Amino acid sequence: MTSPRAATDLSGAETARRRTGGRSARVRVQVLEAVGEVLVERGYDALTVDAVADRAGVHRTTVYRRWRDVGGLLADVLDAAADDGWRPADTGSLEDDLAALNEEVYEALRPGSGTGSGGNITTALIAASFRSAEAAGALSRFWEDRYARSAGAVDRAVARGELPPGPDARALLVTATAPLYQELLLLRSAPDPRLPRRAARAASAAARAGAFH
Amino acid sequence: MTSPRAATDLSGAETARRRTGGRSARVRVQVLEAVGEVLVERGYDALTVDAVADRAGVHRTTVYRRWRDVGGLLADVLDAAADDGWRPADTGSLEDDLAALNEEVYEALRPGSGTGSGGNITTALIAASFRSAEAAGALSRFWEDRYARSAGAVDRAVARGELPPGPDARALLVTATAPLYQELLLLRSAPDPRLPRRAARAASAAARAGAFH
Repeated sequence: MTSPRAATDLSGAETARRRTGGRSARVRVQVLEAVGEVLVERGYDALTVDAVADRAGVHRTTVYRRWRDVGGLLADVLDAAADDGWRPADTGSLEDDLAALNEEVYEALRPGSGTGSGGNITTALIAASFRSAEAAGALSRFWEDRYARSAGAVDRAVARGELPPGPDARALLVTATAPLYQELLLLRSAPDPRLPRRAARAASAAARAGAFH
Repeated sequence: MTSPRAATDLSGAETARRRTGGRSARVRVQVLEAVGEVLVERGYDALTVDAVADRAGVHRTTVYRRWRDVGGLLADVLDAAADDGWRPADTGSLEDDLAALNEEVYEALRPGSGTGSGGNITTALIAASFRSAEAAGALSRFWEDRYARSAGAVDRAVARGELPPGPDARALLVTATAPLYQELLLLRSAPDPRLPRRAARAASAAARAGAFH
């Protein structure tokens, strides 16, 4: 996990690592890192509590006691990813703020992002959300938290007079970021470095035209 | 599968059914319907050639010979779904054309859509695309074909003078539809019947502002 930390990089172990203090926290980092590694390298079917304990070098009883099962492990990876103090960039314009956000989403969804292999931890966690209700719930919480924090960029645009007061910030942010998930995750298109800016420009233009009011 | 046929309803058996002629075509309908039923009712892990043959009332050798494996079955469901003569609505305005398209996407992604149970065949096939490279390829082909056909709505907007010539129709269509996949498939938000119109209005406003030129 060598890539820079991104808005929607879901690899929570990296966040947990920066906060590490004490043996219990170190165990959490080891275990959450192991979840990501097993998931990306060997896939969801190989993701068991025992495989994670082996990979982390932690006793399996410790993992069962603290995380219970694969759903609990995945939810904690995602909850740890959310717990990182992330704030959106403040560039001075709505379109540039959205483009900066989209660059982070793009980076996290690019094939091979966040791992030393061709796999991708963010994509692997989203795929796991179709198999684990706990992962699906944690993923929704992660994204809603990111939208809530990113609303600051919309508030600033209103304060600068770029937008009239009262836009639906969440709808604007979904519109700005959704094309990246559509292209890179669902359509599996070849990554196009112009995509983050294009999607930011479209959402910003729609917002100025009053589409989210 | 009682819901009306939608732009992005991926249940290809319904299309195959309308074209049925001859024993071989009838077998295809039975088998593709069985794929959808097993997938929605019992999930991907239960989706085997034998389970599909049993459900379809067809000899398993027939299924192995014609479809080879689960990847071949899923790809044929999606290819059959694409082969249906679908054309986008022609309402007389870009925003209304996009809203009509989005209503179909919304209908296909709503929980329980297209089945008699709480499952959803479209969501189940998208989830399967994370486990089968053949399904992923067929799903991308399906969507690209839909974007290509929907480009007619953008061409008409240019012909009417609603948009200047030369917009990137595919980028516009991805922007219009992506928020529905984001909300209903990835965020698992409660369905909001205003979403199709809101996403259509935003994409249309962005297009008029030149964001796709």
